Amino acid sequence: MKSLLTSDIPALLADRFKTLRYDDAQRAVIVLDRRKYPFTTEFVILRTYEEVAQAVEDMTVQGGPPLAYVAGLGLALAARDLDASAARQAAYLEQVARRLLATRPTADDLKQIVPAALQAAQNALRAGQDPHRAVLDYVNGQIAHGNEVARLCGEHAARLVNDGDQILTHCFAGAALCWMLWTAKMQGKTITLVGCETRPYLQGARLTAASAVELGIDFKLITDGMAAHLMATGRLDKFICAADRITLDGHITNKVGTLTHAITAAHFGRPFYVLGYDGPDPQTATGADIPIEERQPDEVFYARGAEGTVRTAVPGIGGYYPAFDVTPPHLVSAICTDRGIFAPATIRDYFAQEPGR
Amino acid sequence: MKSLLTSDIPALLADRFKTLRYDDAQRAVIVLDRRKYPFTTEFVILRTYEEVAQAVEDMTVQGGPPLAYVAGLGLALAARDLDASAARQAAYLEQVARRLLATRPTADDLKQIVPAALQAAQNALRAGQDPHRAVLDYVNGQIAHGNEVARLCGEHAARLVNDGDQILTHCFAGAALCWMLWTAKMQGKTITLVGCETRPYLQGARLTAASAVELGIDFKLITDGMAAHLMATGRLDKFICAADRITLDGHITNKVGTLTHAITAAHFGRPFYVLGYDGPDPQTATGADIPIEERQPDEVFYARGAEGTVRTAVPGIGGYYPAFDVTPPHLVSAICTDRGIFAPATIRDYFAQEPGR
Repeated sequence: MKSLLTSDIPALLADRFKTLRYDDAQRAVIVLDRRKYPFTTEFVILRTYEEVAQAVEDMTVQGGPPLAYVAGLGLALAARDLDASAARQAAYLEQVARRLLATRPTADDLKQIVPAALQAAQNALRAGQDPHRAVLDYVNGQIAHGNEVARLCGEHAARLVNDGDQILTHCFAGAALCWMLWTAKMQGKTITLVGCETRPYLQGARLTAASAVELGIDFKLITDGMAAHLMATGRLDKFICAADRITLDGHITNKVGTLTHAITAAHFGRPFYVLGYDGPDPQTATGADIPIEERQPDEVFYARGAEGTVRTAVPGIGGYYPAFDVTPPHLVSAICTDRGIFAPATIRDYFAQEPGR
Repeated sequence: MKSLLTSDIPALLADRFKTLRYDDAQRAVIVLDRRKYPFTTEFVILRTYEEVAQAVEDMTVQGGPPLAYVAGLGLALAARDLDASAARQAAYLEQVARRLLATRPTADDLKQIVPAALQAAQNALRAGQDPHRAVLDYVNGQIAHGNEVARLCGEHAARLVNDGDQILTHCFAGAALCWMLWTAKMQGKTITLVGCETRPYLQGARLTAASAVELGIDFKLITDGMAAHLMATGRLDKFICAADRITLDGHITNKVGTLTHAITAAHFGRPFYVLGYDGPDPQTATGADIPIEERQPDEVFYARGAEGTVRTAVPGIGGYYPAFDVTPPHLVSAICTDRGIFAPATIRDYFAQEPGR
């Protein structure tokens, strides 16, 4: 598929190289702090793999692909100054990879990037080449590939967007969402994007809203409980979000709240389209196989805003913070990927499809 | 129904006289600021009916019955120092009543209390009696009656609570919720109350959570998008909330988000029970007759916490803030009232039922 427009998408978050990279001069991984963006555009400097692991855990970087790229770059940091013993090098890098893999359990990208980056390093070690450079080359190639996947996925998804659409979205669906909105806009379609703020981290109120503003798309913010009323009163035509993992039988997992919107959309007869990037995870058969991350409940007790963080809950209580939920295939209308649009029931066909059709 | 316990419920918000009253010495209406409680227990002093109207509009007092009582006390303020001309007195009080009625359109209590308070004032004027005292007597009688309604409603609802229940609730279901929890606890039932924080005003994270803590009920806070996942994973047995208005055909309106939970509960086969206090509004036939308040969208752009208010959304966007939604009767399992428990389809039977059965 020939792109309508290749380089001039204005949204900062559409090009991952602008928000995360290895910097040779600083010998560090430089990452946009997504907890603060866009209130402040602040880059953090991560000098060790442990700092990288903590930045993934504490949501400095979030989103399945971006956090996987940063974790991969963390392995590049570890591969930079290795012990002289080849045996110890291999064992050390395996230990680093285990630490990086343990940061977030749900999205599949991390499980693909980190082992492959480790493999690149081990291959380089065996061949007497620089493992640091091998990991960097691999991860940078993945970032470039991921940018292209996102562009193609978004361009395919734009077919499902009609002029005048009022589109519900949840959390931040990332670069593919930006490309879908931009492509639809270039096709002359006028859209209203209705974004859930997505408590507790407010990715919708910050990242999605900022991207829509940069792209010149009308954006209406709602709280996470308003979508049903807007569907009941004719103010939402469809629901579109991303997926942190897609199973071989068409289950999707995404930021908690997605299942609620999927059930609500089905109740009101509105379609639910998934921005599925590079398709299903070949290792995950069905929804029950997806580990759902349970984060610290006290993350629900605070709101992080432009002027700082406030406690929004009373003392003396508990909480739950399942970070994701799983939506079954019968509630999903279609899954958009870089290789085209699939029904959830036949998402396995992704693997038989030529790239970039 | 004989109460198990009459006076010793520990939750502050269960007895409305503790949070709102006319004070003779200060010649003012004294109201707990529910936007700040329980972070600070701060009472505001309202000296004119216009100050009362603004306190209702700006959520200083919220909840169908409490805001209606405060509005009624606002009429008492206006009736205190009247012009000497009887004709002007009547016209002035009518104008005040219109202002107070215009504050919030959705809940039915305001529509019952304010016209009746006006009637009490006009009757007193015609009889040469003190209209201020007549309004006060009427409203204080309504507060006492409302406390009893809440107690009876909560005690009936406790029948629907089982030992070990994990109960979803939304917003703050008020005094009847407190009585339901307290009665169930006195019956030896162990409950976990799972409360949605209820953005943007966070009534769940503040008012519901504080009441649960005062009552010694285990409370788990979630964001407004998590209930579906908790139902899917066996961590919620039923959904119970209040209603700002119930129609004669069994529609209920309540804080926006309720419809989402009702649809989700039906999807997962969990019951949805409504704390319906004094039953349906005899003036409202069906759901389409309920005016849904659209508040200023920028209320969604902020979070009010213990240490102040922070902006949580980017600049340059719009928003929606429908304050309520409407749930149809087929999604409601039962409506609890002071006169017993009804099926939504036969909620009209409320009027034929003896009080306090």
